Amino acid sequence: MAENYTLHEDPRSGNCYKIKLTAALLGLPLETRQYDILKGETRTPEFMAEVNPNGRIPVLQINDRFLPESNAACWYLAEGSALIPEDRFARAEMLRWMFFEQYSHEPNIATLRFWLQFVGEANLSAQQKAQIMAKRAGGAEALELLDGHLSAREWMAGDAPSLADIVLYPYTHVADAGGFPLSDYTNICAWIARVEALPGFVPMQ
Amino acid sequence: MAENYTLHEDPRSGNCYKIKLTAALLGLPLETRQYDILKGETRTPEFMAEVNPNGRIPVLQINDRFLPESNAACWYLAEGSALIPEDRFARAEMLRWMFFEQYSHEPNIATLRFWLQFVGEANLSAQQKAQIMAKRAGGAEALELLDGHLSAREWMAGDAPSLADIVLYPYTHVADAGGFPLSDYTNICAWIARVEALPGFVPMQ
Repeated sequence: MAENYTLHEDPRSGNCYKIKLTAALLGLPLETRQYDILKGETRTPEFMAEVNPNGRIPVLQINDRFLPESNAACWYLAEGSALIPEDRFARAEMLRWMFFEQYSHEPNIATLRFWLQFVGEANLSAQQKAQIMAKRAGGAEALELLDGHLSAREWMAGDAPSLADIVLYPYTHVADAGGFPLSDYTNICAWIARVEALPGFVPMQ
Repeated sequence: MAENYTLHEDPRSGNCYKIKLTAALLGLPLETRQYDILKGETRTPEFMAEVNPNGRIPVLQINDRFLPESNAACWYLAEGSALIPEDRFARAEMLRWMFFEQYSHEPNIATLRFWLQFVGEANLSAQQKAQIMAKRAGGAEALELLDGHLSAREWMAGDAPSLADIVLYPYTHVADAGGFPLSDYTNICAWIARVEALPGFVPMQ
C-alpha cells in the first residue's frame, strides 16, 4: 500500500525545500501544510503535542507518523533509490556531507540569510549581531571547502547525484542573500547549474 | 579482505569517542593516531592536505581513504550490524536523532563543556562569552527533549540500541562539565545506565 506524505513546512525554509526537491526528483506526491515560523506557528502547544515536540519545521508526516529533521526526511523518501549510492564508502561520504551541511554550513549560511533577508539587520538582538562575524567566517570556510571538493568532481559523493547534492543545494544557491558572493566560487556555480539541470528539478519559491 | 581502521583523534573529544564506542560494541579493531586540537595539530598544512581539508577531527581512515564527520564514520562501521535498525522508519528515526545531535545538542552542550573545562572561562573571547547564555538555553532545551523522548521508551530509535544512542551518549553523560545538572533528567540518567551496561561498552577517557 502506498504511503501518504505530508510536509509540515514554512515555504521560505531551505530545510523544507530539500524535502520537496527530493520528492520531486523521485516523482513522489507530497502534500504540504504551511506554518509561519516568524509568527511562532510551530511553537504552539498543538504543534508541539501533535507534530514535533522540538517546535521546529520541517516535519515529514508518513501516514500518521511524524519524522522531524530535514536530512532524515530526505533519507526516508530516497531509501532504495539512486539518490543513495549503493557503494558503502560513497554512502558514508554522502552522509559525511549531510552532517557537514547541518553542522558547518546551515548554521552559518542559512542563519545569516534568515537574519538579513527575513528578520532584518536592524531588528537583530545584540547577541545575534555579536555572532555575525563568526558566522561570516564559518560560512566562507564551508563554501571554500565545497568549492575545493568540487574542483575535481561533478557530484559531492560517488559519481552521480545523491542526497548530499540535494541537501547542500538549497542554502548554497541563495548564499548571496546571506552576504556570501557566490561568483567567488566557480566550481560551486558549475555544480549549481548541474543540480538545476536534473530531470524533475523544481526551484525554491 | 578485512579493512584496516585508523581513527585520527583527540582523546578529549566526545566526537572521537563515539567512533571508538561504536567499534568496541561491534568488536572491530581500531588503531588511533592522536592530535592536540588546542595546539592546532589538526590545522597544519600536512593534516589538511593528507587527512582532512576541513582541519577537524575525528577522521576515520579506512585503508587509504579518509572519512571525516563522526556520525558518518559511526555509520560506516555499523553498516549491516544490529546498531542500524532494519525497519525503514526506525532507521530514519535513528538518523533524525543523529542529525539532532549535530545540530541542536553538540554545538550547545559539547561546546560549553569544551569552553569551561578545557579552555577556561577566563580565557574565552568576548564573542564566546556573549554566546554562553544562548548555548545554555539551547542545551537545556535539547536535554529536555531527550528526557521527554525517553520517558516512554528505552532506546532513542526503534526498540533496541542503535547509533542514535551511541552518538548521543558521549556529550550527554558529561553534560555536567558544561554546567547542565544531569540529575534534573531522570529518564536520561536511566538511559545512560542502560548504555553503560551494553556488552563491549568502553568508557570515555
